[in-house]
Amino acid sequence: MQFIKDSIRSVPDYPKKGILFRDITTAIKDPVVMKKIIDTIANEFRDDKIDYVAGIESRGFIFGMPVAYCLNCGFVPIRKPNKLPMETYSVEYSLEYGTDRIEMHKDAIEKGKRVLLIDDLLATGGTASAACELVKKAGTLAGIAFVLELSDLKGREKLPDDVKILTLAKY
Amino acid sequence: MQFIKDSIRSVPDYPKKGILFRDITTAIKDPVVMKKIIDTIANEFRDDKIDYVAGIESRGFIFGMPVAYCLNCGFVPIRKPNKLPMETYSVEYSLEYGTDRIEMHKDAIEKGKRVLLIDDLLATGGTASAACELVKKAGTLAGIAFVLELSDLKGREKLPDDVKILTLAKY
Repeated sequence: MQFIKDSIRSVPDYPKKGILFRDITTAIKDPVVMKKIIDTIANEFRDDKIDYVAGIESRGFIFGMPVAYCLNCGFVPIRKPNKLPMETYSVEYSLEYGTDRIEMHKDAIEKGKRVLLIDDLLATGGTASAACELVKKAGTLAGIAFVLELSDLKGREKLPDDVKILTLAKY
Repeated sequence: MQFIKDSIRSVPDYPKKGILFRDITTAIKDPVVMKKIIDTIANEFRDDKIDYVAGIESRGFIFGMPVAYCLNCGFVPIRKPNKLPMETYSVEYSLEYGTDRIEMHKDAIEKGKRVLLIDDLLATGGTASAACELVKKAGTLAGIAFVLELSDLKGREKLPDDVKILTLAKY
């Protein structure tokens, strides 16, 4: 969607040389663009009987909560390690160097509940596929939405092929 | 507000012995409670000509973005160090041991724009007062909202006394 691309700022060599960083802060500071992003995601999943929106820390919180608000769903945070106080499910995933881990409360999602997973960006798909695995430990993954997709990195190939995947703008 | 207290889970000895952690995840997974929290904050500031909602990473993103959506405002993230790609304002504040720092893009808020600052919890007030300082470097601080306030820690005394401060539940 061109209105999103027009509102994203591309920052060369961040966080390191050779990386072109897509900065969403310019999109969400514009109330018209921000509202259109949220409404587009919510409308796409309005008939999918979503019970919970799960957002991945921390930019997934930014887009996930207002979508949950619009869909009259609850919101479930998927967080970095050691941020959630109760017992968690935990999934490790690979980074360029080493590994990382994300966590979700075990009692966040009841069996059978339908979950829409949201993050800002689909890149290599490492975090997103770990988050899918987390959601499936507890409930039913009903859809995935990203604002941006870096198609060259082929993250989509790591995601389940039996759920609706929405990305609003591709690079 | 009792409906909020009823929905918050209190976790003893987290993150360390002697601390009673107030867990908001049980409040935001309930769509009725979550909607009521967001609507209450938005309604309180609806006539205050807010241009931007600023949320403090990362639970301030959870409450800040949907309030911005409801008020037809832009959203500005106040982040931990080295997360924002462009030039930032930065404010350091004291922790129990050592210091920490939060940052905001220099071009996030234009001079004179009215900002509502949002975080989940007012405790000692260290982060919140640093965030107020950040906002004032760029625009006009027009209000502050927290879901919870731990009154004993007297965080309110560190905040400006010339803006409206809303907290939805006090402990």
